[in-house]
Amino acid sequence: MAQGIATQAEDYSRWYTDVVQKAELADYAPVKGCMVIRPYGYGLWENMRAGLDARFKATGHVNAYFPLLIPESFLQREAEHVEGFSPELAVVTHAGGKKLEEPLVIRPTSETIIWSMYRKWIQSHRDLPILINQWANVVRWELRTRLFLRTAEFLWQEGHTAHATAAEAEEETLRMLDVYADFAETEMALPVIKGLKTEQEKFAGALRTYCIEGLMGDGKALQAGTSHNLGQNFARAFDVTFQNEQGDRELVWATSWGVSTRLVGALVMAHGDDDGLILPPRLAPVQVVIVPIYKTDAERSATVTEAQRVGDILRAAGLRVQVDDRDNFKPGWKYAEWELKGVPLRLEVGPKDIEKRSVFSARRDTREKQALPVDAIATLASEKLVAIQKDIFAKALAFRRQMTTRVDSWEEFKAELETKGGFLVAHWDGTAETEAAIKEETKATIRCLPLTPDPADLEPGDCVYSGRASARRVLFAKSY
Amino acid sequence: MAQGIATQAEDYSRWYTDVVQKAELADYAPVKGCMVIRPYGYGLWENMRAGLDARFKATGHVNAYFPLLIPESFLQREAEHVEGFSPELAVVTHAGGKKLEEPLVIRPTSETIIWSMYRKWIQSHRDLPILINQWANVVRWELRTRLFLRTAEFLWQEGHTAHATAAEAEEETLRMLDVYADFAETEMALPVIKGLKTEQEKFAGALRTYCIEGLMGDGKALQAGTSHNLGQNFARAFDVTFQNEQGDRELVWATSWGVSTRLVGALVMAHGDDDGLILPPRLAPVQVVIVPIYKTDAERSATVTEAQRVGDILRAAGLRVQVDDRDNFKPGWKYAEWELKGVPLRLEVGPKDIEKRSVFSARRDTREKQALPVDAIATLASEKLVAIQKDIFAKALAFRRQMTTRVDSWEEFKAELETKGGFLVAHWDGTAETEAAIKEETKATIRCLPLTPDPADLEPGDCVYSGRASARRVLFAKSY
Repeated sequence: MAQGIATQAEDYSRWYTDVVQKAELADYAPVKGCMVIRPYGYGLWENMRAGLDARFKATGHVNAYFPLLIPESFLQREAEHVEGFSPELAVVTHAGGKKLEEPLVIRPTSETIIWSMYRKWIQSHRDLPILINQWANVVRWELRTRLFLRTAEFLWQEGHTAHATAAEAEEETLRMLDVYADFAETEMALPVIKGLKTEQEKFAGALRTYCIEGLMGDGKALQAGTSHNLGQNFARAFDVTFQNEQGDRELVWATSWGVSTRLVGALVMAHGDDDGLILPPRLAPVQVVIVPIYKTDAERSATVTEAQRVGDILRAAGLRVQVDDRDNFKPGWKYAEWELKGVPLRLEVGPKDIEKRSVFSARRDTREKQALPVDAIATLASEKLVAIQKDIFAKALAFRRQMTTRVDSWEEFKAELETKGGFLVAHWDGTAETEAAIKEETKATIRCLPLTPDPADLEPGDCVYSGRASARRVLFAKSY
Repeated sequence: MAQGIATQAEDYSRWYTDVVQKAELADYAPVKGCMVIRPYGYGLWENMRAGLDARFKATGHVNAYFPLLIPESFLQREAEHVEGFSPELAVVTHAGGKKLEEPLVIRPTSETIIWSMYRKWIQSHRDLPILINQWANVVRWELRTRLFLRTAEFLWQEGHTAHATAAEAEEETLRMLDVYADFAETEMALPVIKGLKTEQEKFAGALRTYCIEGLMGDGKALQAGTSHNLGQNFARAFDVTFQNEQGDRELVWATSWGVSTRLVGALVMAHGDDDGLILPPRLAPVQVVIVPIYKTDAERSATVTEAQRVGDILRAAGLRVQVDDRDNFKPGWKYAEWELKGVPLRLEVGPKDIEKRSVFSARRDTREKQALPVDAIATLASEKLVAIQKDIFAKALAFRRQMTTRVDSWEEFKAELETKGGFLVAHWDGTAETEAAIKEETKATIRCLPLTPDPADLEPGDCVYSGRASARRVLFAKSY
């Protein structure tokens, strides 16, 4: 285990917090529940943001920016929405030295302010669809917070689209769910299950909420993104209608979808080990670190020069590289630090490597070590990174498979949850009462009704808790 | 003049607001003083952001994110800072359904919260320099607001650096001023004057504030960016010291620097005309619009196909292109709309153009029209864009030169300011009293003491207002 971080076995929760802080991803802010995203953590988020933004634009979306502050009365226009968000609001009562006539809330999400604008912008079917995304900060005053996973303020993107028909809105909702799943699996190397939330777990104000669920290293699930079909609820609340091709006025159909900086936390817990982070190469702020190994001044000069030269070759090949030529730390200390920071590939350059025209490579994920000829280093390092990306995804997928258990009795459910954790695939009678009772007794919730389950999971059976008839199996887990 | 916008001559202020709204750069939000940045305006800001961010990274800076909410007491630690920002604060008094023990202010700028963190992060000279930038929203509750130029909430970047020596901090302050000037001139095609602010106009809490000042189309100046040498003021307020190489503890030296979405407003006013926006090609969300011209269905099919083909050629050459194949608008209507939106280059494709293997081009800035052979269209369109970028900069520079007047008497000062406006280069006795009296009588302020003035402006003389001795001329103007 690395520099003063707890092991996962002794205290997973402390391991997480230690890694986030010691790897300098984030730090606690002076205001309780708030965090500072440090440059290394923000670098990860920038890469995530770029990967998501490119996907949003490729699917026809544009970015815009709506105000931080929302009149309190706006939230009250949609009954479920205000009920869901009221307890978490931060409220501005004074501004410019005066008490405000109407308090303003800091956006917990932007449906209300955005639909108040869509009312001005939408007149005719020609104005539809509107496909807008926003990158923003939001505030939800949570009691129990955790760096990245649940903080009073977090960064996210929220898409808000407007459509002429219910079918188009549903299509958009599912399209963005696919975009999220593709991002999670391709970029984060995080296998996810796409599914539908239950009525109790859906977004406050939505018709239907879809989600992607990932499994963390301790066997708990994490909701990594949600996509909501909002039906006509917000159009009704803000009186947003359009004239259709026949000249009649109709209410507009809506979706919203978002992912947040909690994805950084997901990345830590999906791949990390007792030595720290293991970052997927596609998102890693530093993909390759090069460490010169020397004893004498002459060796220092030669190995640093060679390290820089190799660094330049790799940068020219489009890789993100850092040459660690700090003279006040020993190689072993540097190795531990870059392992903690999860850099996928380390290259070492010593006097003998120079002689042999090679560099010595070490993979962060498998610890595999291998000498690589310098003449082909750009190709070989790139191939290693591709292999690491593929292998950490495969490892996470194998772990999820191993941690997914079909259970058929309440005893089995409790025993598996207690001893193994992970996803439990079980029958449920479809009632809110049973869902609540299971949560109360075990802390496990229904993560989703998977969209593409094993066909056997779609056969009817008996509810694992109530024994009543169940149409299909659903996915249970304890979660973040 | 275009679709319902005022002319500059009849009402410049209304012209500005009309253009911003009709070109769909921004719209008024429900909360007074707040704005919505619409996709077209946000597209401009995204391009600005990319141009700035690349320059920040090239000068060694990294991005991070600090909290929106700051304990009210933090601002009070720096006396000038709190005095400057107190009147504009928005205050959160309630959160999570409860009254907060200490009110939190929404950041008007982040020096205080950032230096409270730097205290934790800085121990030794080895921890310095810290070169952090943040992209964020800030809130300053202004009484008189204007879309982009002065809004209660705006987007910006704020750099906050920490250094071991006064010399390094000053060097950083000037480096970032140069970065801003290069950005403004290269990307925005906006000539700017780099200068030092007077004591009265400097940032609340700074030792020295440097700025770049541009001239708008109505002869008023606009401060386009500021770079502050904060000395040791914030290190003192937050007790941030480091151990130097000799083992002694010293206070850390600081800088901060920022530009905001007001640059979008500057772009509108620096180049726009009575038909709307004129966007510099390097920042324009759409650089080339292609309009098919047809009467019959057969012509429509042929010209739209050709327009798409030309569009693909230009996109492959890296240009941002839109093909306007909407069938419900006439070409003339489309021309006016794209002129309003300031697209630098329009290409028209009619049946005769196809026969002649050419497209017809129209520059937004000069209205120059020319047939271009399709076979060389990628090269020719790119060359046009380069020429437009160069020419609008040259035009703005010529305008600024024409609008910069050296004045030597108070009568001349008032007369030039009244009849012509622009920059007045005049002697000033260096006192706050004279500065205030001139502002009171004429609304003109000292924009800056230029860093690289005409050598003649550095000769001593008599203050234009008081007649007292003046060491050098300074730059006056009315301003936004």
